[in-house]
Amino acid sequence: MSLATLDVNQHPYLPASAETLFKAKASKKLSFEEIANHIGRNEVATAAIFYGQAKASPEDIQKLSSLLEIPHELLDEQLSGFPDRGRTVQMPPKEPLIYRLYEIVQNYGYAYKAILNEKFGDGIMSAISFSTKVEKETDKDGNNWAVITLRGKWLPFSRF
Amino acid sequence: MSLATLDVNQHPYLPASAETLFKAKASKKLSFEEIANHIGRNEVATAAIFYGQAKASPEDIQKLSSLLEIPHELLDEQLSGFPDRGRTVQMPPKEPLIYRLYEIVQNYGYAYKAILNEKFGDGIMSAISFSTKVEKETDKDGNNWAVITLRGKWLPFSRF
Amino acid sequence: MSLATLDVNQHPYLPASAETLFKAKASKKLSFEEIANHIGRNEVATAAIFYGQAKASPEDIQKLSSLLEIPHELLDEQLSGFPDRGRTVQMPPKEPLIYRLYEIVQNYGYAYKAILNEKFGDGIMSAISFSTKVEKETDKDGNNWAVITLRGKWLPFSRF
Amino acid sequence: MSLATLDVNQHPYLPASAETLFKAKASKKLSFEEIANHIGRNEVATAAIFYGQAKASPEDIQKLSSLLEIPHELLDEQLSGFPDRGRTVQMPPKEPLIYRLYEIVQNYGYAYKAILNEKFGDGIMSAISFSTKVEKETDKDGNNWAVITLRGKWLPFSRF
Amino acid sequence: MSLATLDVNQHPYLPASAETLFKAKASKKLSFEEIANHIGRNEVATAAIFYGQAKASPEDIQKLSSLLEIPHELLDEQLSGFPDRGRTVQMPPKEPLIYRLYEIVQNYGYAYKAILNEKFGDGIMSAISFSTKVEKETDKDGNNWAVITLRGKWLPFSRF
Amino acid sequence: MSLATLDVNQHPYLPASAETLFKAKASKKLSFEEIANHIGRNEVATAAIFYGQAKASPEDIQKLSSLLEIPHELLDEQLSGFPDRGRTVQMPPKEPLIYRLYEIVQNYGYAYKAILNEKFGDGIMSAISFSTKVEKETDKDGNNWAVITLRGKWLPFSRF
Amino acid sequence: MSLATLDVNQHPYLPASAETLFKAKASKKLSFEEIANHIGRNEVATAAIFYGQAKASPEDIQKLSSLLEIPHELLDEQLSGFPDRGRTVQMPPKEPLIYRLYEIVQNYGYAYKAILNEKFGDGIMSAISFSTKVEKETDKDGNNWAVITLRGKWLPFSRF
Amino acid sequence: MSLATLDVNQHPYLPASAETLFKAKASKKLSFEEIANHIGRNEVATAAIFYGQAKASPEDIQKLSSLLEIPHELLDEQLSGFPDRGRTVQMPPKEPLIYRLYEIVQNYGYAYKAILNEKFGDGIMSAISFSTKVEKETDKDGNNWAVITLRGKWLPFSRF
Amino acid sequence: MSLATLDVNQHPYLPASAETLFKAKASKKLSFEEIANHIGRNEVATAAIFYGQAKASPEDIQKLSSLLEIPHELLDEQLSGFPDRGRTVQMPPKEPLIYRLYEIVQNYGYAYKAILNEKFGDGIMSAISFSTKVEKETDKDGNNWAVITLRGKWLPFSRF
Amino acid sequence: MSLATLDVNQHPYLPASAETLFKAKASKKLSFEEIANHIGRNEVATAAIFYGQAKASPEDIQKLSSLLEIPHELLDEQLSGFPDRGRTVQMPPKEPLIYRLYEIVQNYGYAYKAILNEKFGDGIMSAISFSTKVEKETDKDGNNWAVITLRGKWLPFSRF
Repeated sequence: MSLATLDVNQHPYLPASAETLFKAKASKKLSFEEIANHIGRNEVATAAIFYGQAKASPEDIQKLSSLLEIPHELLDEQLSGFPDRGRTVQMPPKEPLIYRLYEIVQNYGYAYKAILNEKFGDGIMSAISFSTKVEKETDKDGNNWAVITLRGKWLPFSRF
Repeated sequence: MSLATLDVNQHPYLPASAETLFKAKASKKLSFEEIANHIGRNEVATAAIFYGQAKASPEDIQKLSSLLEIPHELLDEQLSGFPDRGRTVQMPPKEPLIYRLYEIVQNYGYAYKAILNEKFGDGIMSAISFSTKVEKETDKDGNNWAVITLRGKWLPFSRF
Repeated sequence: MSLATLDVNQHPYLPASAETLFKAKASKKLSFEEIANHIGRNEVATAAIFYGQAKASPEDIQKLSSLLEIPHELLDEQLSGFPDRGRTVQMPPKEPLIYRLYEIVQNYGYAYKAILNEKFGDGIMSAISFSTKVEKETDKDGNNWAVITLRGKWLPFSRF
Repeated sequence: MSLATLDVNQHPYLPASAETLFKAKASKKLSFEEIANHIGRNEVATAAIFYGQAKASPEDIQKLSSLLEIPHELLDEQLSGFPDRGRTVQMPPKEPLIYRLYEIVQNYGYAYKAILNEKFGDGIMSAISFSTKVEKETDKDGNNWAVITLRGKWLPFSRF
Repeated sequence: MSLATLDVNQHPYLPASAETLFKAKASKKLSFEEIANHIGRNEVATAAIFYGQAKASPEDIQKLSSLLEIPHELLDEQLSGFPDRGRTVQMPPKEPLIYRLYEIVQNYGYAYKAILNEKFGDGIMSAISFSTKVEKETDKDGNNWAVITLRGKWLPFSRF
Repeated sequence: MSLATLDVNQHPYLPASAETLFKAKASKKLSFEEIANHIGRNEVATAAIFYGQAKASPEDIQKLSSLLEIPHELLDEQLSGFPDRGRTVQMPPKEPLIYRLYEIVQNYGYAYKAILNEKFGDGIMSAISFSTKVEKETDKDGNNWAVITLRGKWLPFSRF
Repeated sequence: MSLATLDVNQHPYLPASAETLFKAKASKKLSFEEIANHIGRNEVATAAIFYGQAKASPEDIQKLSSLLEIPHELLDEQLSGFPDRGRTVQMPPKEPLIYRLYEIVQNYGYAYKAILNEKFGDGIMSAISFSTKVEKETDKDGNNWAVITLRGKWLPFSRF
Repeated sequence: MSLATLDVNQHPYLPASAETLFKAKASKKLSFEEIANHIGRNEVATAAIFYGQAKASPEDIQKLSSLLEIPHELLDEQLSGFPDRGRTVQMPPKEPLIYRLYEIVQNYGYAYKAILNEKFGDGIMSAISFSTKVEKETDKDGNNWAVITLRGKWLPFSRF
Repeated sequence: MSLATLDVNQHPYLPASAETLFKAKASKKLSFEEIANHIGRNEVATAAIFYGQAKASPEDIQKLSSLLEIPHELLDEQLSGFPDRGRTVQMPPKEPLIYRLYEIVQNYGYAYKAILNEKFGDGIMSAISFSTKVEKETDKDGNNWAVITLRGKWLPFSRF
Repeated sequence: MSLATLDVNQHPYLPASAETLFKAKASKKLSFEEIANHIGRNEVATAAIFYGQAKASPEDIQKLSSLLEIPHELLDEQLSGFPDRGRTVQMPPKEPLIYRLYEIVQNYGYAYKAILNEKFGDGIMSAISFSTKVEKETDKDGNNWAVITLRGKWLPFSRF
């Protein structure tokens, strides 16, 4: 199995922590599943920490530091601030895998809005009070299916 | 409960069928859930037909025509071609609800890619061999949560 | 005093309700302050209803209909759906008054983020669980000052 | 409590002073509140100085230099010019917290314009003769609310 | 001498007043100089009123109505609101004459900033507390020169 | 008085001469007014040379070299080519001071065109056979006003 | 031989004169060469008048009116103003023929600049004091070659 | 006479050969005319080789190497591949000289298309089977005119 | 089998002929294969004529007119000019099927260039001296494969 | 024959492997045809590996390493992750050869869609379950033709 790696040439705007973490991951030959299990977080959240898109708690930093053998002080310094999110993907995404997700929003955006509005009223599904997960299913013909679940708190627009 | 409606002023590039269908829906005061139940399709797919983003089968047209009391010939003519998808949403989306979905792709795009690649190898989750659904959950504190599931076939890149 | 009006030539993507409401407002020579007082909502929210950017409740529709002498059925039909927000302003805004607000975000965006993160932790100020108001102050030299208050619920990023 | 930090990888167009100041802040483990109190300026203005978006007076430079133990000559050289504002945020903002502010302008821009025009006449709220502040409120249910106040001088369009 | 006219095909987002005024101007065969003299305003301001970029006072409306023989009620209704500025020119401008002005900003923008900052300190030249005029000079070789003067109040950034 | 400086982090596409000149200017603590007087050119033109937006003659290079104590050979090499204009400002400008100039073009562009066409016929005001200057006025209330004059040769479109 | 025609569906921002002229041209089955010969102007200039990109003189209008049998008053009214140039082509051009011209600028732009600067000094080739023509050559192998000549006055940058 | 030079700060995406060639040109104080004469190619083509926009033949490399005293092996390595064209100019061009060429395409694009179509039929003028040259003319009043000739093979669209 | 249709709401910039042709095609219930066979042209070229992207010869017009029962005079008038290509697709394409073709260019563009350059030298594959076809293959597992062939003349860059 | 090379100045966002591979290719003077034959893959796929647009299998890496004399460990480390596709070409492409492919999509996109939909139904041609090849043909007149074949699996939209 191949592991996800990071080539900083291709991601010039990621935080310094991304390079530190991905280098150690490659060196330890660990998958995100293994790392996620170790720190007790979801795989997507774990990868998001690596890309600087989610905040690591002090305990996360502790565990990442020990699992990946990164000096704690270095990792703590690089991860102690607040994520500056949104800089990994250029929009529209050029990466085919990510583009497919974008295309789902583009094609079904108003259908989701209509259904959500009728089910919940005037508001939005939060992307902050939010979690997501990725699962793998294999059907009886041996085809693999990726299942992504998005779960967000419903926020009604305030009346004022 | 309010129902989703369409104001064609705001959606000048939708097909003629969109206006026909939404007008009849408003007149019949039907929700997408009711319509979806009637035609035996998922709610999101049903709304996507209304927005011209999914193809209606001859049976769908038959059922929509009878439920919404739209002359069959008119609906058949307006829905018989192939959807010209992607014109409902301007990207980046300005609509707050749709923007949140876009933001999820923007923030977690590379995290999804890393996890999917490690789980499935080099490939993409199809947005064509694909289905999606929306569910509503209420937690013990009475908060509502929207749960969107995306399920797509995994397509490995061909080796050539 | 001049009143805010709407020239639909300049706003082709507004919902039909916008033209209905602004025409009646011009004909009745009412200010947003007067209308807001009548329906018991904030002035900004009231204007947002006129521009199709906020949802009117059935009571709002009732009161607007009677104050502005718009047939209730017409207004109800035009306002009964869910707002399709975000289409009034082209971004970056070309309108000088609106551009100044945009410029504040552009210049102080990261300063706000730093201060909010240090005060509240990792999260965002909601623009949905949100209210805003506009006030006028006159200083001792007779200069007028506009004061805009933005008040949004703090949403911490979920840990998952 | 975590402190706001700066990763220059992610902000390649900030002035050299930004790196100098943020490094010293991290090293001294000072919050913007503490620094603002020390130099006698508002927190947002203080953070804006750090991001190169506001001008520091000679006294500010003096105080920052002594509090943060940065050689005065270095800081003076880096801060003595005039800020070249507007380069921190890419618009539309990808950062979720900053996007929410942008969305407020996008959704309520014309509502603000209508209310301000009716209250003040034809003109703009200055973003230059301007101050802003951030406050934290906690409601009786324990929810936190961020309150941002924008206060700008009203400038009527000259008649000529 | 030719007169400036308006072809609404080419300016679909101008307010209705623009068509009214330009039609009457063409019919009366009046130059902006003549109209400006009649209403006692600067030529540029007068043309700006025609394009919906400046506000006409009740007296201006009165005088325009009588000079151009436009029913006062019609003109008053079309001009009574607040200008929605900035929609005449697409940026970057494609019109060669307007592009030259844009190019001046592009080429000399930072030079102006440096000179203005050194002369006035940290601030901006207002485009609101602002007037402008156009003059024609002919040099001794018979060449014509256009002279545009921009005069704006200096606004220092507030210290807060 | 503060002096205009250059932070090359913020201006990565300026020619090498810009860094050379601004460093020497900062070191010599000279204003553009002083430098302009020394080389006998307008202040705006002088600043434009510093930003690589205007050509320095051999005499200019000589005088700049001696005033700023920059080795003549170095300066000559860096300034001997032809300016590659237009790279200092990103359009639309994010810098508030420069944005105001841009906004003037955006708001008054067609008004200028109408007035210039009626005064001069079909053509443009040259931005090449062109000079500009900045002046400071103080009114009787002590307010400062910036006056920018643009003077360009009128070029009629050729008939062919 | 086919003649160039205009489908206004595809050119919604052209002036009304464009439709008038092209309709008459199609009806009279005249080529631009024939029309140009009749009015004594270059073919490109003639076509530019049809597209609203060049000004017709009173004599041009007279001749066009009589050749194309368009009522003189109508044509005079539609052509009497000043061209609002630049709206025919969207940039980058999607039309393959026009794209090739754009590509020439893109590929050889700096080469032209270098050669022109070395031949003429610091300045530009005017696109206003300018004429152009199109010629057809056939080589000995029977291949056709299009030859476009651009001839513009050299304008040196003013020293100020 | 000044010579065209290259400041790599301003052209970060040019190939390495561009820096090599321009440095040697500056050092040898050679104009493009002199270099073009030496290698027996057109001046524009020669400058295009310098900017990485045209391919040098082995003989061109030999001659450039000897004229400019660049080690043959180095130049051969840097020029032996295939040009990656189109990266020198950002479109729309900000450089005034190059913008004028762009403006000609923008203003006369459809006029050229109409004339070329009527003269040659349905097709394009090739920008590949193409040559161009720059000439200088001085009229009897002493004015200089730049004449650019574009000559491209006519390619009819294939019928299939 | 469904037939491709055209909804002009979704394609506002197509020529008038597109609506004429598609309406007749729908009314006659003809596939492009049938129409292509009738006029003796490739299916893609036939569809391109319908979308205004390819030129119909007089014989094509004759045959289309008789097959589709469109008055010859009308069709001749609508198709007699030269196609104004490139306006059907907005780029990047939002339509999923067309996006996949775009993505192939995006992902394999430089690989194609490298292979073509090594096989043919410095030049391009013409998109004008060009034909294309679509074929359907079914593999032994019953999967369908689309095969698109692009065949263009190789044009070497002229040496000049 | 010239070989395709890579100048990393022009491709700053390629992965590190691209520089490694292209350098070795240049040093070994190998064409993509020779390399493709050696590793048993298609030429386009081989070049795509070099540009970081296709995944190399462990065997590919082994063979590339031995053919190109690149230390296996280095190449394995640089190629072991998953390609981050889409970063080589800026869209719209400025490179003339790649632009022609883009233009084919732009001009024939809807024609392809119509033909594919009528032949296969509602769906897309996959760009993932996909292969492509480049061939050279020479016609009887000695003209060279490039033939590019795109072969993708047909994916029908799921019904849900």
